[in-house]
Amino acid sequence: MADIAQALAAITGPRGVLTGTDVSTRPAGIWRSDTIAAKAIVRPRDTAEVAAVLRACNDAGQSVIAQGGLTGLVQSAISEPRDIMLSLERMNRVESVDLVNRTMTVQAGVPLQTVQETADDHGLLYPLDLGARGSCTVGGNISTNAGGNRVIRYGMTRDMVLGLEAVLADGTAVSSMNQMIKNNAGYDLKQLFIGSEGSLGIVTRAVLRLREKPRSQETMFVAVDSFDRLPELLKHMDARLGGALSAFEVLWSDFYRLVTTPPAKQKPPLPQQYPYYALIEAMGGDADNDAARAQAALAEAYESGLLADAVIAQNEAQRREMWAMRDDVEQCNRFPPLFIFDVGLPIPSMEAYVSDVNRLLDASFDTYRNFTFGHLGDGNLHFGICAGEDEESAREAVERAVYEPLKHIDGTISAEHGIGLEKKSYLLISRSPEEVALMRTLKQALDPKGILNPGKIFDRDSEAS
Amino acid sequence: MADIAQALAAITGPRGVLTGTDVSTRPAGIWRSDTIAAKAIVRPRDTAEVAAVLRACNDAGQSVIAQGGLTGLVQSAISEPRDIMLSLERMNRVESVDLVNRTMTVQAGVPLQTVQETADDHGLLYPLDLGARGSCTVGGNISTNAGGNRVIRYGMTRDMVLGLEAVLADGTAVSSMNQMIKNNAGYDLKQLFIGSEGSLGIVTRAVLRLREKPRSQETMFVAVDSFDRLPELLKHMDARLGGALSAFEVLWSDFYRLVTTPPAKQKPPLPQQYPYYALIEAMGGDADNDAARAQAALAEAYESGLLADAVIAQNEAQRREMWAMRDDVEQCNRFPPLFIFDVGLPIPSMEAYVSDVNRLLDASFDTYRNFTFGHLGDGNLHFGICAGEDEESAREAVERAVYEPLKHIDGTISAEHGIGLEKKSYLLISRSPEEVALMRTLKQALDPKGILNPGKIFDRDSEAS
Repeated sequence: MADIAQALAAITGPRGVLTGTDVSTRPAGIWRSDTIAAKAIVRPRDTAEVAAVLRACNDAGQSVIAQGGLTGLVQSAISEPRDIMLSLERMNRVESVDLVNRTMTVQAGVPLQTVQETADDHGLLYPLDLGARGSCTVGGNISTNAGGNRVIRYGMTRDMVLGLEAVLADGTAVSSMNQMIKNNAGYDLKQLFIGSEGSLGIVTRAVLRLREKPRSQETMFVAVDSFDRLPELLKHMDARLGGALSAFEVLWSDFYRLVTTPPAKQKPPLPQQYPYYALIEAMGGDADNDAARAQAALAEAYESGLLADAVIAQNEAQRREMWAMRDDVEQCNRFPPLFIFDVGLPIPSMEAYVSDVNRLLDASFDTYRNFTFGHLGDGNLHFGICAGEDEESAREAVERAVYEPLKHIDGTISAEHGIGLEKKSYLLISRSPEEVALMRTLKQALDPKGILNPGKIFDRDSEAS
Repeated sequence: MADIAQALAAITGPRGVLTGTDVSTRPAGIWRSDTIAAKAIVRPRDTAEVAAVLRACNDAGQSVIAQGGLTGLVQSAISEPRDIMLSLERMNRVESVDLVNRTMTVQAGVPLQTVQETADDHGLLYPLDLGARGSCTVGGNISTNAGGNRVIRYGMTRDMVLGLEAVLADGTAVSSMNQMIKNNAGYDLKQLFIGSEGSLGIVTRAVLRLREKPRSQETMFVAVDSFDRLPELLKHMDARLGGALSAFEVLWSDFYRLVTTPPAKQKPPLPQQYPYYALIEAMGGDADNDAARAQAALAEAYESGLLADAVIAQNEAQRREMWAMRDDVEQCNRFPPLFIFDVGLPIPSMEAYVSDVNRLLDASFDTYRNFTFGHLGDGNLHFGICAGEDEESAREAVERAVYEPLKHIDGTISAEHGIGLEKKSYLLISRSPEEVALMRTLKQALDPKGILNPGKIFDRDSEAS
């Protein structure tokens, strides 16, 4: 054990390697109560050091887990005592902002919020946004292909990364720091490293695409009488707002009541009697006229029977309250044990699927709560399910109730959180044996010794120890 | 030779395999004067037949070139007498349209125009559009990651494909027919097959993302006094139009004069004295008010000195004329030999780069013409260069003049057309040895015998024969 830590310290200097209580006192994740178990945490300062570290580890058959802000939800950056943790925390610089090209070049360890604020300081927008913005890093966003609330307008992280640099398991640095929206010169290698959870390479730098900063923001909250009107309303608003629609978040009534009833802080902006609610946001370029446009779009929806009631945020405070309500998932913790899910499925299957899940929960548990909400426009639903006596005994029945009905409707067990350790035993619900075999082929080709984040996403026959 | 054709006919039936003059009378490409050279053209009817064909070819070490509409510009679907051509022409069905999920499921051989028209018939939009729409196929669009004129708004083909099915070299069909905007369940395998020019697998089916059909379309043509105002104007229009900007095409003065002076058909919509012109288009959702918004945006640009003159299309006929002018690249053919390029580079380097190219052309040729135009918003420039006495003797000097200055500004030798055979000797200008090595690693892992489109994009050590 001492050997590899010493070898790494020779690369990074002694301050670059943490061992002993410097490791065991660090939390294993910002939502977790346990601490990191690892031989050492190595903290390289640049790509060359990452390359040298991986070369040494690969030569030694030493497993390496890359670590960003540790905000993931699927145990993808969890290590064991035999692992080396590689933290990008000392590679946290914004290298440059190009105002003409509308790009930002960053090191992987920079926090998302720093990127957002730097873009904003330059009159531009980095559209990715999620609750963990202050802790999560660009490298983590990339390796998990993070989504968030604005996917319907701006896409996922994959759509915001123009170029990146990654170090392969054998220490080869592959720099694909493309700055253009278009580049068809051979294979688009960056795609390998986006969303593969640090298992095919470690992202060290990236070129991010920036957007023009919106000049208007209209936030609307509506009540809807039946599920089938939701996708109709989505289509209407999407078409009517002509490219400005940036969020379409749906709240099922149970979730709405939870987050608008004390002890939850927010008051209900609309009466609690409706079965569905949607938080709709548009980001436009015409500060003078966009509010009227949003109002007209809502009025048309009301006239054609698509919505039952509606309110528009009149100021920033009201906008924040609407989002605080949507984001107050923490309320679900009042009924432990709590299981959070992140599934995706075709919209036409959604209503029947939620019924199926609830039917299966009902069959397994005397009582349960299923707080349902999600990014309907992206086909992405979240459940906060409270069922059973304790987490351990309830977990399998809850997971089966959520995942198994996805199989015959071509749904996904992970829309945005990833697989990690938490979901890997269910991967075959969403992916075919041929797909998993092809994933293994890629893993074997890029990381033949299996040192990078071994055992995450899928099992390999032989893992590094 | 007869053996493999017979083996394939046993799979597809005799009508599925063309040989002899049925092969040698077919054009090798819609822009080419030569005809196809191949042992046979095999035309499977479904994925199972594609799989069986590839299995047989892989067992025999038989090279296979996939063929769509043969509209490519870089010799990526060119075959030799030893090759088998695999045409998707009998897999040309739209399988389904989902109006709620806003997706279309198609076979790879369906022409782009059929997809566009089918979407339109259902009140939706498939945003990919290029001149070859009537001939090119979805499979070809995917395997080349086709771009076109609306990338700034809707992205490239990569951004429009939610799922796909591909057959690997060994005949394994990998079905990743995802229908959701978000799916992070393991590696995003479809990325392997998008833009890899049929060298990693053959795409057989796809799920395409459809968009709401625009309800307004504003087409503007403006004159600009200096290059540095172009990206400022782009930023202004992009921000002001709030997500509706769908095209920002720049015409250098030489190109503008060429396409607006007889014998070219179009008249100049603005005087010919300016150095730069831009064709700007917005597609919005508010038929009543979007024209006023576009006019206001242009007026603001004029007041702040970003543009020297402007005209807005008042009707569909004027819009078509503006686009016909931009698309009349054929005029370059009046000064043969003609060399067409498709490069990409960061916008801040663009003005100096064009000067560099012209300086190098000037040093090599007594006279030359460089008609320059492109998708400035995407960093993508096209050149129609007329230089030298004949194609063969002039080609290398012209190519070097265009490609070599790209190296130190991180440009790409192919923004949207791909590499194929035509550009592969210049690949190292845009990609590092480490990147090409990683491409080879992927090729070796997915196609160990090298039967799929051998010799395209990059050389392998040992190719199938």
